[in-house]
Amino acid sequence: MAYPQNSHLQTTFTTPGFISRRREVVYSTTLLYQLKVLKTTGRYDAFKLKWHASYNDEPDVWPVPNHLFWDSDVAKWIEGACYFLQYKENQEIESAVKELVEMIRSAQQDDGYLNIHFTVVEPGKRFTNLRDLHELYNAGHLIEAALAHNQYYGNDLLLEPILKYVDLLSLTFGPDPEQKHGYPGHPEIELALLRLYEKTRDLKHLKLARYFIDERGNPKGQDGRHYYDVEAEVRGDRPDEMPKYFPEKRSYWYQQAHKPIVEQENIEGHAVRAMYLLTAVSDLVRVDKSEDAETKRTAVERLWNNMVQKKMYLTGGIGAIKQWEGFGIDYFLPSGTDEGGCYSETCASIGVMMLAERLLQLDLDAKYADIMELCFYNAVSTGMSEDGSKFTYVNQLASSDTDLSRRAEWFTCACCPPNVARLLGYVGGYLWTPSSDEKNNTVQVNVHTYASATLSISVGEHTVQLEQTTNWPWDGNIRFELQSPEAISTTIRLRIPGWAKEWTISPEDKQHASKVTKGYLTLSPDFVRTNSSFQLNIPLKPRCISPHPYTNQNIVALARGPIIYCVEDFDNPWVKDHFKNLVLDPECEISETDVESTEPYKNLTVRDGATLLQVPEPSGPYVAHDEETFVKADIQKLHFIPYALRDNRGGKGHMRVGLRRKSTRV
Amino acid sequence: MAYPQNSHLQTTFTTPGFISRRREVVYSTTLLYQLKVLKTTGRYDAFKLKWHASYNDEPDVWPVPNHLFWDSDVAKWIEGACYFLQYKENQEIESAVKELVEMIRSAQQDDGYLNIHFTVVEPGKRFTNLRDLHELYNAGHLIEAALAHNQYYGNDLLLEPILKYVDLLSLTFGPDPEQKHGYPGHPEIELALLRLYEKTRDLKHLKLARYFIDERGNPKGQDGRHYYDVEAEVRGDRPDEMPKYFPEKRSYWYQQAHKPIVEQENIEGHAVRAMYLLTAVSDLVRVDKSEDAETKRTAVERLWNNMVQKKMYLTGGIGAIKQWEGFGIDYFLPSGTDEGGCYSETCASIGVMMLAERLLQLDLDAKYADIMELCFYNAVSTGMSEDGSKFTYVNQLASSDTDLSRRAEWFTCACCPPNVARLLGYVGGYLWTPSSDEKNNTVQVNVHTYASATLSISVGEHTVQLEQTTNWPWDGNIRFELQSPEAISTTIRLRIPGWAKEWTISPEDKQHASKVTKGYLTLSPDFVRTNSSFQLNIPLKPRCISPHPYTNQNIVALARGPIIYCVEDFDNPWVKDHFKNLVLDPECEISETDVESTEPYKNLTVRDGATLLQVPEPSGPYVAHDEETFVKADIQKLHFIPYALRDNRGGKGHMRVGLRRKSTRV
Repeated sequence: MAYPQNSHLQTTFTTPGFISRRREVVYSTTLLYQLKVLKTTGRYDAFKLKWHASYNDEPDVWPVPNHLFWDSDVAKWIEGACYFLQYKENQEIESAVKELVEMIRSAQQDDGYLNIHFTVVEPGKRFTNLRDLHELYNAGHLIEAALAHNQYYGNDLLLEPILKYVDLLSLTFGPDPEQKHGYPGHPEIELALLRLYEKTRDLKHLKLARYFIDERGNPKGQDGRHYYDVEAEVRGDRPDEMPKYFPEKRSYWYQQAHKPIVEQENIEGHAVRAMYLLTAVSDLVRVDKSEDAETKRTAVERLWNNMVQKKMYLTGGIGAIKQWEGFGIDYFLPSGTDEGGCYSETCASIGVMMLAERLLQLDLDAKYADIMELCFYNAVSTGMSEDGSKFTYVNQLASSDTDLSRRAEWFTCACCPPNVARLLGYVGGYLWTPSSDEKNNTVQVNVHTYASATLSISVGEHTVQLEQTTNWPWDGNIRFELQSPEAISTTIRLRIPGWAKEWTISPEDKQHASKVTKGYLTLSPDFVRTNSSFQLNIPLKPRCISPHPYTNQNIVALARGPIIYCVEDFDNPWVKDHFKNLVLDPECEISETDVESTEPYKNLTVRDGATLLQVPEPSGPYVAHDEETFVKADIQKLHFIPYALRDNRGGKGHMRVGLRRKSTRV
Repeated sequence: MAYPQNSHLQTTFTTPGFISRRREVVYSTTLLYQLKVLKTTGRYDAFKLKWHASYNDEPDVWPVPNHLFWDSDVAKWIEGACYFLQYKENQEIESAVKELVEMIRSAQQDDGYLNIHFTVVEPGKRFTNLRDLHELYNAGHLIEAALAHNQYYGNDLLLEPILKYVDLLSLTFGPDPEQKHGYPGHPEIELALLRLYEKTRDLKHLKLARYFIDERGNPKGQDGRHYYDVEAEVRGDRPDEMPKYFPEKRSYWYQQAHKPIVEQENIEGHAVRAMYLLTAVSDLVRVDKSEDAETKRTAVERLWNNMVQKKMYLTGGIGAIKQWEGFGIDYFLPSGTDEGGCYSETCASIGVMMLAERLLQLDLDAKYADIMELCFYNAVSTGMSEDGSKFTYVNQLASSDTDLSRRAEWFTCACCPPNVARLLGYVGGYLWTPSSDEKNNTVQVNVHTYASATLSISVGEHTVQLEQTTNWPWDGNIRFELQSPEAISTTIRLRIPGWAKEWTISPEDKQHASKVTKGYLTLSPDFVRTNSSFQLNIPLKPRCISPHPYTNQNIVALARGPIIYCVEDFDNPWVKDHFKNLVLDPECEISETDVESTEPYKNLTVRDGATLLQVPEPSGPYVAHDEETFVKADIQKLHFIPYALRDNRGGKGHMRVGLRRKSTRV
């Protein structure tokens, strides 16, 4: 199965671990908590198409009404709920899904149109501002909800109205003269349409996805001009009347629409949009074997490399710039607000995971899986509190007085909370990519990351089952148990993380048939036939990492396996300045301790390796080299906690990932 | 005399030095070159009030027409020309001044109004957009031109129409209900009105300056609302129709009008505006002994300290942000475009000098003079080429492929070139502040910086004359010669720069009556009576300086005396990357060499102290500490040139001031 949203059904989590515990929290708390918030904020009933008082509010981010995304909030909740219902039934969740589906069905207009804002608030203005107004984005999330709903219930109650809506969209958008040559300002529908196509095999769905992707950024798409220019002129916008997120006129790079995707050299603009778009482009490359597929693949790889090498934080977060919630220039990666910015939206790193998973299907290279795992255990997991009822939108790497390290109960623009929930619903699909060939009786399993779980693969009448047992990411020992009928030839590929200095497989492969290609160790059918139980061992030791020197961040952070650590005031209560003056010796000795908690984890402690900078107070813009900084006090014990688990224990909200690196002068 | 624009008449430059050579270049080349450009671009004839083809151009910076500043370009040239005419007569310059004055007189409307744009292009719209449209800014420069013209010619040909215009402004703006409660978006007229008041002693001029200053930022100034809000509403602006320099709606901090000046905590917004405003505020404090003078003084000092300690570059440049040509957050000081920005406009540092000079009159503290001198020899002097015919607007501390280290022949917004010229016209007024008391027969001279020059001070019938002879800033020996009649008691205060580790005065002051207070060594009347010839010696040695650690710029730069150095490709031709990978050991040995040139200077050379960073190419956002950077090649000789003298010798335009600082790992 090509999509993790489908293949997750083959995975069963077994003994409790990081992932399964997070899933349990979502099931027992988050879904119901979010349902309550949907109800109290008006989102739940919005598809009834009645006026809500908040529709009168001035937009926080002009020209985008605050309620514009409500369709997608509901859709993402339904999608996540349906994944979790596969795992365990729940009456309250089921009734809510049922009622929401009824409301959505009843909200559909005669011609198939289905959108809250453009039915209730601005009924005459549908499809007049694709650039800013998230109409097709909402449609995309409705498609994804319908697919999840159909997967769980096996009926078309939600899929049917959505297909009708997609029919309307297919009539409305396309290359014909009477069609609009537009495409969404916020990509999402493209990836949803491709998933829909896999379900329906209706070429209309593939065609519309491809149109949105290929037409994007066409400088002469509508009447010889850029679609967004024509659209703005028709609306009567004045040229200098700019959305809040545009730093200047026609900042279409914000929407990755400044030029066709295949011509884009660097990753630009709104980070979530970029990730959703490239996920769809990668998927189109896989599905659509047309001539320009290779050009598209090259473009995605180019943009991926630019992103992970030059525009990604240590945590897997992306986006340094608040104004457009997205990418700055190469290597511009300040740690927090008081150093120049840091955005790193939760949804954006969820998007990186989506993209990485697509790319792994095109090219099995552990560099993609490394980043997928980095995002999951850090930038994404930090987005939800241990108890599952508080969330982040922005994930800075250092707190400041204006932006403390704190989660919130909800957001006006509430994309992130339900996105984390639905991700955890199908996260099993990210563990591994199984495939089988019934004709040749072969099975292949590419294992991208590790967790106690079982994978079932049907090959004709046969079933192959692979089980991993591990305490990853805290422990690097992973035991595998393969149950494969004699008739089936199974190949298993295990990812060796890029950060792993050493690893062993046992029993040893005495034939030396196993080899590591692009970060994946291939275990041959012969090996696994002989050794149905085998172990991968990747010793996990704390290590010091730094961003690229061009970032001008002369900092060092601690990592252990895929986990990135931070310091918090909770167990370093002396801090008063967000650890701004803390200096760490990268040659320090680091000890680790197991901590019992809802999510048991390993904390790290540095003894006698940290000092404080005494900051001079010059009367001008410089200090002489020999008068410079010196040590004020030694920190006997400096405590580190995984970044994902920050802000779960109270405290003042002081936190930092990267600490000043000790140099000769300090 | 309270203004350097007046007191410069007391100073005569003697043996050639840095300053007098720069002045000679302006006199022999720059003024005539700029006159030619004024003519070819249409500025020269603009006061004839005919239509110019360029008036149809779309503005580069909406909503500001490109030609909006033409009045001030002409005015600044007249002002500078009149200062230089005091120095040497020149027929071509005199005729141009004469003709321009005639055109300005003829351009005045019956009611006194005097502005090109609002007479020719938008005649119905005068005083409808004070926030953006530089109307009063132009008026301020006309006032300053009229004062300089009157000073040289001793007639009222220019002053007369200007006084008539000021009368109209005094009627138009003020606290009365029928008056407009507005103030200029770009301060300048305030400082000009205060200078005018000194000349006219007409309280109306003081009152209008004070009104503009006190009313600024009043949240309820017009009809209970902010003046700029009311003004925008009357114009029919839409709320999200934003000037290009506004990052969001109502970014009135851009104009330092977000709150009253006395309530402003940090220096914000457009750097030139801030400097011109605070110059006027400081001067008002001096002139106006009303109750809130101390509050104003405290505010200016607070904003000064914030600026020089947290928002100033090593060169004395200010303003990191291109969008609003101004200040970013504290300590945000990247070196160039590819590191996050760097603006450092020439005019802004000229403004710092203006402000520092005002502050020195309120509080004789060398911290102000240190910055005044730093700006002059670096951020300001770099603004004009050695030959006086090329200029900068932006002065970054590191070049990049998009912004090479290059001067230009002119700018659409041409504030900087004539600003440098007029500054050099009256720069003698910055050397020292003389004052005398005829009643008590005393003279005081506060010497702020050093150059071969003579100062004459009249005390009743007597004349005191102080001469300095020095090759400053290249040599730290300054010989003084005082000619003071027996009847006069003269006190001399010599600035000891903050960066000076050591200094001597000779002959020795055996009475030990001399002492250093706030960076000024006071030589008593007794001492100078006995020692009419004395010498100050400040050994000048190359030194390493760094910006504050909070800037996250782990860099080191070379300085010698007040001069900040840079590396250029001209004598380091191996460079291909703008010295981005260059690493300097701050413990290096630095040798100096005299270089013969139009402006002779000392270059610096580091032998075996520089290396190149080998930059790793990781597949993700971090590198492990132990795999990090290492040295690629040693640079046997690294050559440095004063930043002010960059880009005078050709080359590729690669330049950098601050180099990566060598640490343990490199």
